[in-house]
Order: sequence, then C-alpha cells, then structure tokens
Amino acid sequence: MTRRPLLAVDWGTSSLRGAWLDESGQVLQERAFDRGILSVAAGQFPAVFDSCFGDWMSRPGALCLMSGMVGSQQGWQQAAYCPCPADLTLIAASLTWVRPGCLAIVPGLSCEHGAVPDVMRGEETQVLGAMQLLGLRDSLLVLPGTHSKWVRLRDAAIESFATCMTGEFYALLRQHSILARSLPADDGVLDRRVFCQGVEQALAGSSLLNTAFSTRTLALFERLKPEVLPSYLSGLVIGEELRAQSLPAGSSLVLVGSENLTQRYQCALELLGVSSQSVGSQAAWAGLWTISQTI
Amino acid sequence: MTRRPLLAVDWGTSSLRGAWLDESGQVLQERAFDRGILSVAAGQFPAVFDSCFGDWMSRPGALCLMSGMVGSQQGWQQAAYCPCPADLTLIAASLTWVRPGCLAIVPGLSCEHGAVPDVMRGEETQVLGAMQLLGLRDSLLVLPGTHSKWVRLRDAAIESFATCMTGEFYALLRQHSILARSLPADDGVLDRRVFCQGVEQALAGSSLLNTAFSTRTLALFERLKPEVLPSYLSGLVIGEELRAQSLPAGSSLVLVGSENLTQRYQCALELLGVSSQSVGSQAAWAGLWTISQTI
Repeated sequence: MTRRPLLAVDWGTSSLRGAWLDESGQVLQERAFDRGILSVAAGQFPAVFDSCFGDWMSRPGALCLMSGMVGSQQGWQQAAYCPCPADLTLIAASLTWVRPGCLAIVPGLSCEHGAVPDVMRGEETQVLGAMQLLGLRDSLLVLPGTHSKWVRLRDAAIESFATCMTGEFYALLRQHSILARSLPADDGVLDRRVFCQGVEQALAGSSLLNTAFSTRTLALFERLKPEVLPSYLSGLVIGEELRAQSLPAGSSLVLVGSENLTQRYQCALELLGVSSQSVGSQAAWAGLWTISQTI
Repeated sequence: MTRRPLLAVDWGTSSLRGAWLDESGQVLQERAFDRGILSVAAGQFPAVFDSCFGDWMSRPGALCLMSGMVGSQQGWQQAAYCPCPADLTLIAASLTWVRPGCLAIVPGLSCEHGAVPDVMRGEETQVLGAMQLLGLRDSLLVLPGTHSKWVRLRDAAIESFATCMTGEFYALLRQHSILARSLPADDGVLDRRVFCQGVEQALAGSSLLNTAFSTRTLALFERLKPEVLPSYLSGLVIGEELRAQSLPAGSSLVLVGSENLTQRYQCALELLGVSSQSVGSQAAWAGLWTISQTI
C-alpha cells in the first residue's frame, strides 16, 4: 500500500481534469482545462501535462495516475485493454508506466459479446470509485454520456459491459438530421413533463429509427412547441436506451456521472419502476485513489 | 374516366422527375433534373416547371399530376394531408389544383398512432401504382429510403403506415459520427457477406444505440477491414429496421423502390425467412396514371 500524495488525472477526448489528494485520499484541490486529447498534437503530451500539473508533480513523493482516452492510440501512450472479468487487483497490476514509479496510465477494459468486442477507457476507474464509495460488489451501473456504458459487477469484479451511443445519437439528430430544422438553436431548460412524454414514446416503441420521426410530426401538427422539442428528443433517446435493457420493474441500479445527466436517467427510470442511486464526478478521484492504494 | 395524355411528375426534396404517358398509360419519355424543391426559391416553381416540361404541357389535352414534397409547405402549393384509411377514390378526389383542369398536386397522407401522427408525401402514389401493377388489395409494403415507409393495405385502401428514418440514420452515422473516422471516404461496392453480418448483428440486438458501436470496435480490433465497414453499417441499420417490425417467418411483403435498395432489403429479409417481390420506380408513373383515370 502506497502512502503518497496523489495527482489524479482524468484525461478524456475533450477535457482534462486533475485533483490533488493528500495521503489519506482527501481531495484538496481540483483543476480543469480545455485540453482534451484531441487538442494535443502527438509528442506534446508531456509539455501539456507539465504546464498544467508541473507544480503539483514537483512536490515530494507525488504519484500521478491518469485514466481515460489519454491511454488510447491517439493519447500520450497506448495502454492495452484488460479483458473482462477485471477487478481492482488486475487493473492495478496492469498500469502502463509513462514515468516509472511516478506517472502511470490506467488500462481500459475490453469484453466480448459473441464475436463482437466492446471497449471502455476511463469508465472502469469511475466504476472502481463508485464501488469504493458505495461498497458495491454485485450491481448494475450506468455511466451516461456520449457513449453510455452499462456495467455488470459480479463478486466485486467488472464481469461485462455494453456501450450505447446515446449522447452521440442525440447530438447527431439534434444538429445534423431533418429534426434540426424543427428544433430551436438552444436546448433551453429541460421540460420534465415533455421529457417524460419522450421516454414513454420510446418505451412503447420498438426502435429509435421510428420514434425519432415523431419529433418532426408532433412539431408539424403543432402538438409540441419548438422550445420543448429538445426535451422530447432527449426523452426519446434516453428512453430508447432504457427500453433496450429490458430492466425488470422493482430492480435497482447505480448511476455514475454529472448531475445534469443522472437526474434525467432517474426521471426515466422512475417511469419503469426502477430505483437508482447516483454518484458524481468524484467517482474518478475515488477510483484513482483506490488503485494507488493497491500498487 | 379521362382519356388524355399525362405528364406524370415526381417532385421530391432533392430531385425532379417527369414522364410523358400516352392516352393508354404507356410511358413514352422520361426526364430527370437536379431541381428538387430545396433548390427552388419560393415563387420560382412555375418557372422551373415550365422550363423543364413546358413543351410537353403545350401539347393538346395534356394533363399534369404531381406527387411528392412539391405539395409541402416548402413546395409549390400546400396540398393538405388525407387522413388514413385512404383509397384511390379519396386520394383522387382530394387533388389540389394549381392550374384548374390542367395541373394538380396529389395529397400526402397522415395517420395516427395513439397521439402521434405520421405523414408521407409521394409514397402514397407509389403505393397506388404498386397496387395497380401487382393487383394488391391486402398487403404489407415497404418503401425503403431516407425515410422508409411501412404501409399496410386493407381492402385496397392504405389503412396505416409508419416511418423509419433508416437512410438518414445511415447517413448521420456514416458522415457525422465517431464511426466516420473508421470508414473509408467512399462506400465502394456492397460486400454481401459483411452486409448480412451487420443484419444478423442487428437482429440479435435490441437497439441500434448499442449495435452501431460494433462498427467501431470491429475496426479497432481489426476483425473487419475498413473497406467493408460501409456494408456492415448498412446491414446494421437495415437489420434494425427489420428487427423493429417483428415480421413472422413465412410472411411476405412488397418492396417498392430503386433496385440498389430493394436488393439489400431482399437479402436481409431472406435471413428472416420473409419472402418479397419488388417494384421499381415505374410505380410512381403507374400511380399517377391510375389517379388520372379516376378524376
């Protein structure tokens, strides 16, 4: 077990966040930068890292663990995927050391569904954090986002997971489809009633290919006002994601993510009679801290 | 019954096609122009029409019937939707005359699924044509495209229909999603085996939100080569459309559309044990001719 201060870094596609944790795992400071890996040229990762966190790393005994797309082909250094089932011990034993003893990248995970693989990078760390914060061993977790991850825990290991491109489908339909012509420029405030109407429509349907078109016809027939259409469409895509899971009423799951998103999923899950508890962005810090205590 | 030569016009969002039919309904000549309604400024429809078809319309006794988005808000003149169920008699009685006795627009159709409307413009005419060409009275028809239409005929009337945004979802994923990074610039020739692999994947799944991601992971793990990914993705979206219909094995349906598309659907339907027959683009001309014989 390491008793060192930890620089925990969540370096994703579009953002870079870091936190400074003391020897007991307490978060003392946080920083965020618009320096997602897509904004960093090959070879420039060390310089960007040092400019953002150099002062923290120069402190005595500092250890840095990074998770997210920083370990992808397009990132600082490729960190091979760990195959599922994967637990804390396996993940902590599979770090890719960029600066030996000092700076490492957490591996992503892969799993197989028949002949089709699935992958995640960064979410495995949030799951480890949620497990630690909530004491989970056997649960279903959802990490909503551009690519939502549905994660099955069994005996304190990530047994399998599946990706839904929910956030990306919303953005595609919102920005690039024929529906964009009916929608206002700004998403505005969520209309909870209309959001639920979209969820119900998706749950009663069989595919977003069909239900998405109702956004257009409800606007065409003036049954929904333009300003609530983004709420309706959000309900449709999140409802579609939930429909596809066939969750039994009375079941429960854990939501991991920003409050803005987890609140929408909570609303939608209530319509299904599924209970949920939520963990926020501190899950990543807790996950990196838990790994640091295992190496 | 009218015994006049007919100018049949299919004026859609992105294309303008016309055919000259003699008094017996024989197609004598066809013309196509890149003058879809989106390329025509408000007020310019008469001028574009006359420049494309003025010579035909100056012939003695000429009648022109137009179908498609030309009857929408963004078209030449709005033609109100006929509510379903709608048969040939109702549709022919609901023409919008732009030049009385001489030039009319066929109405679109609307139908209701619970509190959600659906609409079509142009496909109703192709359905009437397919009915006439194949002698249909009680059938399921599919008109694949950007927005596929699934049409249920009962007693020689269009009882109801539903839209699937299949072609548009393909284009969105192909051009604007993260999958676009894995796909080659050009779609290339269809790889039938890989197309069927995509169909099977969609049929085994529960939502395109999830199955679409396999395009990325199969590329990432080099289990599919980049050049066949468009075929795989096409199989995924068409397979998703078919999955959502829950078609019983042993059933049959009618495909109406271009050979390029109907062949893909035929392949996919074979995997489901569903038989199909196809009608091509002559269905629009036959539909407009049938209407002209009823007014």
